[in-house]
Amino acid sequence: MKRDGAFGLSINTATVRRQGDLVAILAACARHGIGAVAPWRDQVAAVGLARAARAVRDNGLALSGYCRGGMFPSDPSRRAEVRDDNRRAVDEALALGAPCLVLVVGGLPQFSRPGSPPTRDIAMARTQVEDGIAELLDHARDAGMPLAIEPLHPMYAADRSCVNSLAQALDLCDRLDPARGGALGVAVDVYHVWWDPDLQARIARAGQERLLAFHICDWLVPTADLLDDRGMMGDGVIDLPCIRGWMAEAGFAGHSEVEIFSKRWWSHPMEVVLATCIDRHRAVA
Amino acid sequence: MKRDGAFGLSINTATVRRQGDLVAILAACARHGIGAVAPWRDQVAAVGLARAARAVRDNGLALSGYCRGGMFPSDPSRRAEVRDDNRRAVDEALALGAPCLVLVVGGLPQFSRPGSPPTRDIAMARTQVEDGIAELLDHARDAGMPLAIEPLHPMYAADRSCVNSLAQALDLCDRLDPARGGALGVAVDVYHVWWDPDLQARIARAGQERLLAFHICDWLVPTADLLDDRGMMGDGVIDLPCIRGWMAEAGFAGHSEVEIFSKRWWSHPMEVVLATCIDRHRAVA
Repeated sequence: MKRDGAFGLSINTATVRRQGDLVAILAACARHGIGAVAPWRDQVAAVGLARAARAVRDNGLALSGYCRGGMFPSDPSRRAEVRDDNRRAVDEALALGAPCLVLVVGGLPQFSRPGSPPTRDIAMARTQVEDGIAELLDHARDAGMPLAIEPLHPMYAADRSCVNSLAQALDLCDRLDPARGGALGVAVDVYHVWWDPDLQARIARAGQERLLAFHICDWLVPTADLLDDRGMMGDGVIDLPCIRGWMAEAGFAGHSEVEIFSKRWWSHPMEVVLATCIDRHRAVA
Repeated sequence: MKRDGAFGLSINTATVRRQGDLVAILAACARHGIGAVAPWRDQVAAVGLARAARAVRDNGLALSGYCRGGMFPSDPSRRAEVRDDNRRAVDEALALGAPCLVLVVGGLPQFSRPGSPPTRDIAMARTQVEDGIAELLDHARDAGMPLAIEPLHPMYAADRSCVNSLAQALDLCDRLDPARGGALGVAVDVYHVWWDPDLQARIARAGQERLLAFHICDWLVPTADLLDDRGMMGDGVIDLPCIRGWMAEAGFAGHSEVEIFSKRWWSHPMEVVLATCIDRHRAVA
């Protein structure tokens, strides 16, 4: 099912965020023969957008995505800030040559945009997310930058994303972009969706037009920390070849982007982590 | 929406499991004027079934459930053990006068029944769960003991339960008990399902015949531990009155059962925890 060029390795730069700045990370990826990366906004900001874009070009790297826009729920006084922040993210993605801007949509407003008054109304947060994406989509369409909604694991529903399943993300896509023109889709991260009993059907429903990114890592048992204990591919319980097969059947032909938030892996030298990603990508993912 | 007798307080005995044995817990609940409890098998076993049943009666307590049967996935050599273990759980629930046996169905076989060979095939685990419940249902029907499938949060999919949404549990119920005769239903624990964007519709779909138990606690932000950091009602982000309203609208008229696994609350004296449960149940749940 693996096709030429598809499911090539990409490194999400958060995977080695503590081992060097973005320029060092991109150079190391190129040295290891890795063809693609997905940078984070804070890592880009730390070295400057122009320097980051030059480092991408000079190292001959492709991008598999740009992380991340979103965090839409907020109190009304922060709406302009949210809108402008997300438009800047689109413009940065464009400057870097990213194929899509990944959206982590935010949870309750007090966590999504700190300072917003606390609430338990997650339905309202979901409405704000839909309104926020609808507004951003106009700017993103004009810019020619696809938006990839990333459903996050339900354990992040309160503080990071109130979009918690692929079905929910696809329903949003269908309401905001019924024409399936490629401007709006999803990022499928196995960590967030592997447990879904309907995953195969939902990936098939998404189809090639909606499948904009594929993130891999593994789910460890036990998981010691909700945020920073993701596993290296092969060390956990996710059937990665199975899910990759479903992505291929649905027509996805992009990269397999390794995104591992892990105190353990952040404590190893960058070279060791990259070499391990290469090995595991070949062997099990 | 609150009706006479419905949503009365019950204490799941795991909430104070480290502060005393089951006999001490039941006596303390009675002293506090709490009308119902839901005991755990290991706590019953520690004092003996006959003594536990007598303590329930002598303290004039009702039961809101018995925790727990399940853990169905296993390698073939353990099937008889799984079957017999679950039949005993049904018989104990009957001896204690429980209105239902709560089922935590198990995840991958190596975690559900340690010693089983490791696998990543969660679809197979789900098939084993369905087969296991089907087999147990015959015994439970004969005994007149309803089985309540408890969908667990997706973060427990690998090691505790591969049934991870109310929809998935209800699909199981519909396949195994299409007549909706009351022999099979669900336990709705807010901790596991609060994030579900379709929760209201799913509770309505369950209806009175399928709604066998209602567990409450709260989701803390941040959550420090996947297992033992549940919050006291009111300390987290779950809109408890809203979910209780949906349960009431669907015809549920049982107890609100407080089930809090928390290193923090286990460190307080039993009297403090029970008094806090009473206060919070009145104020916010």
